[in-house]
Amino acid sequence: MQEIRAVDTYLRSNANRFVAELQEFLRIPSVSAQPVHKPDIRKAAEFVRAQCKQAGMSAKLVPTAGNPIVYAEWTKAKNAPTVLVYGHYDVQPPDPLDQWETPPFEPTIRKGRLYARGATDDKGQMLTHIKSVEAWMKTAGSLPVNVKFVIEGEEEVGSNNLDLFLKEHKAKLKCDVAVISDTAQFGPGVPAITYGLRGIIAVEITLKGPRQDLHSGVFGGSVANPANAAAKLIAALHDDAGRVHIPGFYDDVIPLTAAERAEFAKLPFKEAPYLKSLGVAKPHGESGFSTLERRWARPTCDVNGMISGYTGVGPKTIIPAQSTIKLTCRLVPNQNPKRVVDSLRKFAQQQLLPGIRMEFQDFHGAPAVVCDLNSPYMQAAREAVAAGFGTPPVMIREGGSIPVVGSFKQILGVDTLLLGWGQNSDNLHSPNESFRLEDFHGGIKASAHLWGELAAR
Amino acid sequence: MQEIRAVDTYLRSNANRFVAELQEFLRIPSVSAQPVHKPDIRKAAEFVRAQCKQAGMSAKLVPTAGNPIVYAEWTKAKNAPTVLVYGHYDVQPPDPLDQWETPPFEPTIRKGRLYARGATDDKGQMLTHIKSVEAWMKTAGSLPVNVKFVIEGEEEVGSNNLDLFLKEHKAKLKCDVAVISDTAQFGPGVPAITYGLRGIIAVEITLKGPRQDLHSGVFGGSVANPANAAAKLIAALHDDAGRVHIPGFYDDVIPLTAAERAEFAKLPFKEAPYLKSLGVAKPHGESGFSTLERRWARPTCDVNGMISGYTGVGPKTIIPAQSTIKLTCRLVPNQNPKRVVDSLRKFAQQQLLPGIRMEFQDFHGAPAVVCDLNSPYMQAAREAVAAGFGTPPVMIREGGSIPVVGSFKQILGVDTLLLGWGQNSDNLHSPNESFRLEDFHGGIKASAHLWGELAAR
Repeated sequence: MQEIRAVDTYLRSNANRFVAELQEFLRIPSVSAQPVHKPDIRKAAEFVRAQCKQAGMSAKLVPTAGNPIVYAEWTKAKNAPTVLVYGHYDVQPPDPLDQWETPPFEPTIRKGRLYARGATDDKGQMLTHIKSVEAWMKTAGSLPVNVKFVIEGEEEVGSNNLDLFLKEHKAKLKCDVAVISDTAQFGPGVPAITYGLRGIIAVEITLKGPRQDLHSGVFGGSVANPANAAAKLIAALHDDAGRVHIPGFYDDVIPLTAAERAEFAKLPFKEAPYLKSLGVAKPHGESGFSTLERRWARPTCDVNGMISGYTGVGPKTIIPAQSTIKLTCRLVPNQNPKRVVDSLRKFAQQQLLPGIRMEFQDFHGAPAVVCDLNSPYMQAAREAVAAGFGTPPVMIREGGSIPVVGSFKQILGVDTLLLGWGQNSDNLHSPNESFRLEDFHGGIKASAHLWGELAAR
Repeated sequence: MQEIRAVDTYLRSNANRFVAELQEFLRIPSVSAQPVHKPDIRKAAEFVRAQCKQAGMSAKLVPTAGNPIVYAEWTKAKNAPTVLVYGHYDVQPPDPLDQWETPPFEPTIRKGRLYARGATDDKGQMLTHIKSVEAWMKTAGSLPVNVKFVIEGEEEVGSNNLDLFLKEHKAKLKCDVAVISDTAQFGPGVPAITYGLRGIIAVEITLKGPRQDLHSGVFGGSVANPANAAAKLIAALHDDAGRVHIPGFYDDVIPLTAAERAEFAKLPFKEAPYLKSLGVAKPHGESGFSTLERRWARPTCDVNGMISGYTGVGPKTIIPAQSTIKLTCRLVPNQNPKRVVDSLRKFAQQQLLPGIRMEFQDFHGAPAVVCDLNSPYMQAAREAVAAGFGTPPVMIREGGSIPVVGSFKQILGVDTLLLGWGQNSDNLHSPNESFRLEDFHGGIKASAHLWGELAAR
């Protein structure tokens, strides 16, 4: 108790410096999807290593076939559990740039929020755990648990080299539980622990028609139009009830229990302000489920981007030579990503108009996960979050995907505590991404308490 | 007869210079859709004026609310018909640039073809009539008919200011018949006169969903996706038989006569090499009609371009905030463009998913036209084309749209002779647009003979 009080005091004294260091981190445009940012990726990895060393851990960059992984550890706690902390230092592309109020890589504080690409996803959230280690080390001189940090740089492009890293360093990474802060609280003042995540598949489909763009007057009516063909394919993905129409798509889905549906219904979720915050007049999705159920526990199929033909100013009367669709499905427990991709490919092939050829690229996939609500680690996390945010957490699911949770289970054999410090209003993956400073500080405090709570069980 | 022989000799002697002057014309990137090319538009208009003066006509630039119209005339032929020649000096955007073998505005001759944006559409074809005037003036010192040239700079963006020009100068433009060379021969060695054109409507539809791009995991399943919504709208435009599904779309269509269908069937059209030239394995379109019938005399509905969400490298897991579709319908005789646009707007509105808002922009429209096959002007044109190309023309329709033909009929009360010197293989509106030099020279000769033939009737 003595120790945690000193830690809390240290956190208060150093709060402003922590924010300044996060701002420095956010100035690095470590966009993993765009090769031009390769040097920034390196810079961000070096920044994380320096932070870990400053906190009192040993730290190094481990090369991969892609971006380096930062590995840091402190393992001198005897007879104490070992916690693996995962996070990522790469960020989403900032497009569309013209919609940012302040530039995405010039972190700016407005009304208690820090605005920048990566503020909440995941630089700000991830940094909380390094800062909590620092607080223990600078006050107690040690941690009550052993910690191993794995901070990667390819989360936003599919974590393609992480599984190999986990497999190659399986012995070194031995641990009792994993911790990730890359999700959201239920809302401001309603901290949450996320016990379920959706999975994902992501593909890119290119439909090719004529050798080159054709005059739509001279040739229109004689050959299939790849843009119209793309629309036919996309439209076929849903039926009129908003259900995904790919054959067998729902076959493996584990339905929500009546108890889960009841718990969801009790949460302080109001549809009207939610829709208002998104700028949408009416909800839409699979019929027969509530909005929270559809977001957290039902699979979806969304176009993320598409392009075909002339997209400049004014008209251009052509039949485009090709069209490209980027598509993701969100998956729920027991759906097999590979099986879904295969069904989608087959289904897409069947939708093609005569004379249209399809190219199909499978980006990455991950199954959904649901965690044990009653493990001792989950109990420790509940106490820690309550300490950090001043009120006990609600237990929720989340619609996003963190593929590494599946990898930790499969390769390292451990469950993951999903302790999200962010908010759904943080605009992650969107313009004007931000992180509330009180959530940043609450997250650091919760993390610091987690080390103590885990040691106590 | 004496006079036309001297003209023919002049054309042979000056053939190389004519090509050089066309190349100079094609070096001017007069792209009307892109505001950045405004100075080039002016430059191209000045070039046309200089050509007309060099040919012996008076010529001036007439300002409009948009790009200037070049007006030139020679009207000293007593008791002779007056011919209005229409053409355009603006060109389509050259995109996609990376598919050009040589740059679009660096005219290059390869194997008897002159490659450049605008080579056939319409700079090369239009110039033939100025050169034929020059030949008469430099040899006979006069023309056997009166000529009035109207060369505009907004054909590729809807000719928005032409009708007002025609109305304001109706008296000045009084004529007996109009001539336009902006269509194609039936094929190499098979010259043609086009007696029918399809009409057009062009619109841009923007579908708006959430205020900004959303994370597809966190929010997916709760709101309609504007890209999926666009696909639903586009897909709904056709039924499974390839017919346009907009209510009432075919109500006003005048069916092809049995005689026309028989004539079309006799033309030397082979589907296999046609498809091969386009790089397409199978034809596609409205069932129950031949490929020529579908191209020339059946209405269509094609996406010309669409864009939504993230279209860069790799995946980005978002629900896009909006999607944009550029769409054209080709119309056939008796379809009313305004009525079609209204039906399309209403139909599109009905396809919207909940929470999606539509913006609908109507670019421009023009009805289809069919010309009198038996007028004296048509007889003169048949003789002239036969003289220019060495073989009598076939009578065809064309799938493209030349809205001004309808305006000439409506405002000036005259029919139009559509004398196309180009080929369908000229790649108009596509990368590597070209014009066969023999078609350029054949066109000049046919035009020179047309002045004589028209005077003789």
